[in-house]
Amino acid sequence: MTFQEKLSGIIEKKQSLLCVGLDTDINRIPDFLKSDPEPLFAFNKAIIEATAEYAAAYKVNTAFYEACGAAGWEALEKTFAFLPDHTLNIADAKRGDIGNTAKMYAKAIFEKLNADAVTLNAYMGKDTAEPFLADPEKGVFFLCLTSNPGSRDFQYFTDGDLKLYEKIALTVNEWNVNSNCGLVVGATHPEELQHIRSIVPGLPFLIPGIGAQGGDLEKSVQYGLDKNGAGALFNSSRAIIYASADHGFANAAYAAAKDTRDALNKAKIMKI
Amino acid sequence: MTFQEKLSGIIEKKQSLLCVGLDTDINRIPDFLKSDPEPLFAFNKAIIEATAEYAAAYKVNTAFYEACGAAGWEALEKTFAFLPDHTLNIADAKRGDIGNTAKMYAKAIFEKLNADAVTLNAYMGKDTAEPFLADPEKGVFFLCLTSNPGSRDFQYFTDGDLKLYEKIALTVNEWNVNSNCGLVVGATHPEELQHIRSIVPGLPFLIPGIGAQGGDLEKSVQYGLDKNGAGALFNSSRAIIYASADHGFANAAYAAAKDTRDALNKAKIMKI
Repeated sequence: MTFQEKLSGIIEKKQSLLCVGLDTDINRIPDFLKSDPEPLFAFNKAIIEATAEYAAAYKVNTAFYEACGAAGWEALEKTFAFLPDHTLNIADAKRGDIGNTAKMYAKAIFEKLNADAVTLNAYMGKDTAEPFLADPEKGVFFLCLTSNPGSRDFQYFTDGDLKLYEKIALTVNEWNVNSNCGLVVGATHPEELQHIRSIVPGLPFLIPGIGAQGGDLEKSVQYGLDKNGAGALFNSSRAIIYASADHGFANAAYAAAKDTRDALNKAKIMKI
Repeated sequence: MTFQEKLSGIIEKKQSLLCVGLDTDINRIPDFLKSDPEPLFAFNKAIIEATAEYAAAYKVNTAFYEACGAAGWEALEKTFAFLPDHTLNIADAKRGDIGNTAKMYAKAIFEKLNADAVTLNAYMGKDTAEPFLADPEKGVFFLCLTSNPGSRDFQYFTDGDLKLYEKIALTVNEWNVNSNCGLVVGATHPEELQHIRSIVPGLPFLIPGIGAQGGDLEKSVQYGLDKNGAGALFNSSRAIIYASADHGFANAAYAAAKDTRDALNKAKIMKI
């Protein structure tokens, strides 16, 4: 099964377009968990158990674990090992390096963490992507148009015909011979999202920014889904995992995940 | 002292332009070290002791450590703790993410690892760089024109006036208000290196590719140094650390580091 088939299958089976982002900040987890011997993992375990019914995917942001050093990397490994088999598990690592180094990152992410997919930065070109694309079952979401203010600094750079983010979208589409490429397109750019969907109708999108970053959920769904009403995951991190900071944090995350899943499905029905 | 002053001081004091790259691959270290309880660190310790006389800087490539999981991250921490105070210690991490995530990467690299500098990918724009640039003593080398074949895929994309790598060079120069920005420019592009030096005469360069990647050492020195005969570090990884794979590996690395340091200084004299 290719990555793209796996993604479609999960979205269909779970009736969910939701990706829950595990941006687990040691300073933002509930106080009573901070004294746990494995605070990041203890938090994640509770969040995963609470949200698994509604999450099609989890996106684990490596930065938040690296900030805790080797202990953080252990929490990252334990988190991936705990993620359910029936979700798509993404390492949000935004790596990108020359061939022999890229092989090492691919080993770290696809073998050590056993992630199903990774986010990559395409700036360094095709040889930096190839080690990640060799296995059709493993997916890569390449940064295309990101959700942050600085996305305007270089991503709109244009040759008069194409903007850089369009050039990347079209190039990644050419790299997609194993049906395992996708794009990261921020929900904070709905019009551009509609345009990118039109130029690469078959690529899966990972769409961050519908939560704390304030992207437009309804427009993102309308514009981001493919013609089959699938082909996109919508990520919310902080708005779900920090829905509450007290003992009820897992229940609050459950409710926030359910609400977001439902809002995504409602927007999907409006599209169809 | 700003990062740029620190860099100039080290190059002057050590009379060296050499950066030794610790791309420590568990499969390429000598066999007798593979049974060491901490094989990556044992190898690095021997390499660092052997080369410290000639290295102005060390560049530690995070991918090779992450490929070994949490144990690799421990080796990364121990390696940084062991690096000499009188060298410039660079985390070659090529990170880049939105503001609140970038803060976490900055914490991982500047606080947990206590690196002096980091390599970053500028694709996502200014807010992704800011958390790394707040402290004038800590430096950032942004990917500009990389040494690999895939550098041609996007880095030469042009608006008719500027190519993307020139746009990044000029933009990073504007970000350099704290005298702590630099660029990564591959030794495999000597003509472009000369041009980039001409448009940003004051930015430090980190120049990989003079070793196993076959970049032209003499031209790179001629074209990469600033008007004071400094402002650039030339990285060699595999050609130094894997100069031999037997019990004499540290002596071989010592000799390779000395030879490379000398060749760099010879090329520098030819320029002056």
